[in-house]
Amino acid sequence: MDSSQYPILDTIDSPADLRTLELKNLRAVCAEVREFLIDCVSKTGGHFGAGLGAVELAVALHYVFNTPEDKLVWDTGHQAYPHKILTGRKDRMHTIRQLGGLSGFLKRSESEYDVFGAGHASTAISAALGITVARDLAGKEFKVVAIVGDGSLTGGMAYEAMNNAGLLKKDMIVILNDNRMVSLSSLNPTLWSLHDYFSEVLTHPTYNKFKANVWDLTGKLDNFGDRLRVVAQKLEKGVKAVVTPGMLFEALGFRYFGPFNGHNVVKLVEILRHVKDLKGPILLHTITQKGKGYPPAEKEATRLHGVTPFDKITGVMHKTPNEAPAYTKIFGQAMVEICKMNPKVVGITAAMPDGTGLTFLQKEMPERFFDVGIAEQHGVTFAAGMATEGYIPVAAIYSTFLQRAFDQVVHDVALQGLHVVFVLDRGGLVGADGPTHHGALDLSYLRCIQGMVVMAPKDEQELRDMLYTAVEYKMGPIALRYPRGSALGVPLRKEFRRLDIGKGEIVRRGKDVALLAIGNMVPYSLQAAELLAADGLEAEVVNMRFVKPLDDELVRDLASRFDSMMTVEDNTIHGGLGSAVLESLSKQQIHGVAVRLHGLPDAFVDHGTPEELHHLHKLDGQGIAEVARSFLSSRKGLSAFELVTT
Amino acid sequence: MDSSQYPILDTIDSPADLRTLELKNLRAVCAEVREFLIDCVSKTGGHFGAGLGAVELAVALHYVFNTPEDKLVWDTGHQAYPHKILTGRKDRMHTIRQLGGLSGFLKRSESEYDVFGAGHASTAISAALGITVARDLAGKEFKVVAIVGDGSLTGGMAYEAMNNAGLLKKDMIVILNDNRMVSLSSLNPTLWSLHDYFSEVLTHPTYNKFKANVWDLTGKLDNFGDRLRVVAQKLEKGVKAVVTPGMLFEALGFRYFGPFNGHNVVKLVEILRHVKDLKGPILLHTITQKGKGYPPAEKEATRLHGVTPFDKITGVMHKTPNEAPAYTKIFGQAMVEICKMNPKVVGITAAMPDGTGLTFLQKEMPERFFDVGIAEQHGVTFAAGMATEGYIPVAAIYSTFLQRAFDQVVHDVALQGLHVVFVLDRGGLVGADGPTHHGALDLSYLRCIQGMVVMAPKDEQELRDMLYTAVEYKMGPIALRYPRGSALGVPLRKEFRRLDIGKGEIVRRGKDVALLAIGNMVPYSLQAAELLAADGLEAEVVNMRFVKPLDDELVRDLASRFDSMMTVEDNTIHGGLGSAVLESLSKQQIHGVAVRLHGLPDAFVDHGTPEELHHLHKLDGQGIAEVARSFLSSRKGLSAFELVTT
Repeated sequence: MDSSQYPILDTIDSPADLRTLELKNLRAVCAEVREFLIDCVSKTGGHFGAGLGAVELAVALHYVFNTPEDKLVWDTGHQAYPHKILTGRKDRMHTIRQLGGLSGFLKRSESEYDVFGAGHASTAISAALGITVARDLAGKEFKVVAIVGDGSLTGGMAYEAMNNAGLLKKDMIVILNDNRMVSLSSLNPTLWSLHDYFSEVLTHPTYNKFKANVWDLTGKLDNFGDRLRVVAQKLEKGVKAVVTPGMLFEALGFRYFGPFNGHNVVKLVEILRHVKDLKGPILLHTITQKGKGYPPAEKEATRLHGVTPFDKITGVMHKTPNEAPAYTKIFGQAMVEICKMNPKVVGITAAMPDGTGLTFLQKEMPERFFDVGIAEQHGVTFAAGMATEGYIPVAAIYSTFLQRAFDQVVHDVALQGLHVVFVLDRGGLVGADGPTHHGALDLSYLRCIQGMVVMAPKDEQELRDMLYTAVEYKMGPIALRYPRGSALGVPLRKEFRRLDIGKGEIVRRGKDVALLAIGNMVPYSLQAAELLAADGLEAEVVNMRFVKPLDDELVRDLASRFDSMMTVEDNTIHGGLGSAVLESLSKQQIHGVAVRLHGLPDAFVDHGTPEELHHLHKLDGQGIAEVARSFLSSRKGLSAFELVTT
Repeated sequence: MDSSQYPILDTIDSPADLRTLELKNLRAVCAEVREFLIDCVSKTGGHFGAGLGAVELAVALHYVFNTPEDKLVWDTGHQAYPHKILTGRKDRMHTIRQLGGLSGFLKRSESEYDVFGAGHASTAISAALGITVARDLAGKEFKVVAIVGDGSLTGGMAYEAMNNAGLLKKDMIVILNDNRMVSLSSLNPTLWSLHDYFSEVLTHPTYNKFKANVWDLTGKLDNFGDRLRVVAQKLEKGVKAVVTPGMLFEALGFRYFGPFNGHNVVKLVEILRHVKDLKGPILLHTITQKGKGYPPAEKEATRLHGVTPFDKITGVMHKTPNEAPAYTKIFGQAMVEICKMNPKVVGITAAMPDGTGLTFLQKEMPERFFDVGIAEQHGVTFAAGMATEGYIPVAAIYSTFLQRAFDQVVHDVALQGLHVVFVLDRGGLVGADGPTHHGALDLSYLRCIQGMVVMAPKDEQELRDMLYTAVEYKMGPIALRYPRGSALGVPLRKEFRRLDIGKGEIVRRGKDVALLAIGNMVPYSLQAAELLAADGLEAEVVNMRFVKPLDDELVRDLASRFDSMMTVEDNTIHGGLGSAVLESLSKQQIHGVAVRLHGLPDAFVDHGTPEELHHLHKLDGQGIAEVARSFLSSRKGLSAFELVTT
């Protein structure tokens, strides 16, 4: 991009530079930030609409507040691109979400201006309150501002935090960046029932009775009638002023200001200056438009929520050629087929109908589709409630987001042995969204739950069969997880087949080493076997299918034929498939077999494309082959007890 | 107890019997239920105050609604004792919370009247909404009622559910059983800032301005002045009627009725009959008194929240003689000492200051103590926020309740490498509270989290040192867990010592088998070693101390000296200490050592005393010895690969 396009922005290397500008120049700054943002993201892809909607907010906040001494805590981070541009990172914006480049979210290690990292929603008020309390304990003076989208307020955690903040009465500011849609769920812009608040109040029977009384009484007063009607109208206005959307926040102990136009930067600066030094918890309600200033994004806020690189003029995304359908789509379509076959099956999403593929069901059978908001906890227990009535809820929740409902899976579903199907999209490494979004723990956190069945398909055909198997299972909770992105492109059988619970399959015979793989690590292990074969090593490849119950019989068979086994999973090494295999061997008192566990490290994996990350962590064909080779060579000539620390 | 004391109750074997009575008799029923409850619990112990407060509610609900066709969903279950008495279980009430007896909570397998199990708070509205949606999909006609305490409404999940219910506009009733205290947190009766709502509204500037206007305007109207003041008063009443605590619920899409006296059973019946057939989501607000009708419990609602058997007349609990101090107390006192030494340390509880022992800190240094409400999610991220400012938050949360904040531990603490100390009381089997409250998964769900340190002390001295070590650690998240109940009574060293991270210790030397134990399984394993010694088997006993990082060196040392090792933990067998030991052996390429994993089964453990449960699951000295013996005898004469499936 040509830097002369951005004459003011070029002079802003930090918020301190921004603060030297005159107020009247801020509109021009906003225009440049917006143009810069469109220019960048059209080339890099990334989260987009939320950032465009928050340009004026970011400019006004950094203009009024003395960042980084004052703390801005952005919720989720989708909205934080303008913040990044203003805080010394504009020269690296073209690297966003790329391996080694800027994160697409907030990241403490990236900038002192990123006060608190965020990828999951609804965390900012809690973090900001913690910072505020710490400030006061330490006798410091800085300001704390949390910036939260309306979607994030459907998450119960935000409510817990506001309730607590209201009680503690600390000086902090929450900015509700209300773009009038639940983030990530444009098809349900009124999902958040608070949106109905205003109309609700004005049609409330008590309110109407009160209004009627006023008119009745004033009507009876003859000559004073007209004047009194004016009084009554004033009173009605008074009531309306009290009964605003702000009342909810007032109820929680916040002082409410708004709603304000979030795209009038000069006005925003004035308001922020006004509320900056007020005491107690303040809620400032701004109305913004997702995608503001870029017509294609304004029109299609969901499609352009998170994007691949696109044509700046038309908004059309560049396609990867010959792409197989995404797992998400395969699941979404299979759900429709299964729901047609079985009237008891329903689909549940936590504000991700597009992301999970449940939009297919939503379109075809809206009465069997439920979007509960960004509310995984509620969603899972809601599913449990339906299961008690004989329905078969399929809760489709990203691997990383189901972490939010871990207790509900345990306490409300598993403990009661309820038949709820958990479908975890984005299992394993998700790519550009990075560490907040990787599904790196699901095999472990699900496997420890009593009675839970955990499976992962090797391809899209198996995904379909696993979904069918899960729905037919009926014995209790059952989960399947699959990766983000394109499936393999294997031909799909029209009918579904029921898999044997706890049974794996050998997909390639060998004699030198057994690769026990799960999910998308199966095709990679087959690639590895090809590479190993070129070296004269015959690897057997096993599709374990089930992490729990594990196929003990198959493990025993393998142990009887191989003295070297390697497990392969895109899950943490702790407590996942590899552990399950070791536990199985221990349970069966099989000793003396060398098992190498290969999976994700005990560290958070950064962002990059899935291919890059798989390569980096030796979880692609080449990497698996390399690890297997090194494992086998370390084994050579070693007796059972000789120690080789790897 | 003499059954002639309960002439009416004797005739009630099910709610259908209750419904044959005349309305005027219900007061007498309530009196008998209350007396029966006091009589039972004074003998059995159990949760008490909440039940006494819900007698009239339970009677009125079963009287008005056609249970079990109509569904009553009780939140948490503390309040459900009267419900149990009325639903065919009064003859078994004396077995409550005892091995093989009635559960202290709701349990689907116990009664068709227990529609949805509950031990953790805030789940009922979600479950009830799921049931309601299922009812409508199936075209059925029954009613659904969720009964929720005010404390449970501080949990974000309840808010998520109400928000969703308001959107779906289904016919369901939520009863807010408001006993004016956050359950389990009597020391903070105003914790829930909504309690300030009413006064807040009436002092709201807009409201006051409006009121002033009314008086001004009417004052100017001379001879009509008096009459108009009457009008104005009516208007003010109108506003007050609109602006009630109900407004929050109205904002969420509920129709609000109340508040009502929850101890007037006749009035309750009338109200329930009135709202029963109304359309849409209804919230009925009843005010009740915890411990109602039993003066000692009314006076000391917290102390008599959950009780051991007590003297019915005085309310004094029977003491177990010579009891060592509880781990909870040891922790609570150590916290005060450490907070005095280190000004950066603070304590955080989620509505359990008594249960966690943080009351000691609350009393001594209230400014360093934070009770966030029943809001574990918020509490953990609040802690993370404080940690970014250099504070060292000690989040003291029961093992089972930290499940609620699993994602926050991962996403907000561990991912950012923040130094938050997690102190998990009630790790392992908790006893009478049963499956909803056992801390059976913590070693597994914490161990899989990247970079997390996980430890468990063998006794109270080690607990103190571990807390100190955790506070001094500074490198990132660190957790310790210990069991419910009495410590061992070992003498306490005054000063604290810092433990080496990831280092275990050998506590008894042996040669035939190594017992690798964690936490309270260490003293039990020492007992086992004594028993084994009597049989001529020399067991080495190892206090592993850390489940993560595991002491690889110690494992290697043991593997070089023993060909039979057994791990002992009161955690699920999947992904816990045993898995960690197997992973360590695999990582170090140590093969041929037989390792037997001994821990909790892959099933939910029922209630009973901890001693009974440990015995049942062979996790006491005798049980561990028995498992070790059987393990060793199965090993005898087996070569490395011979199979013995156990």
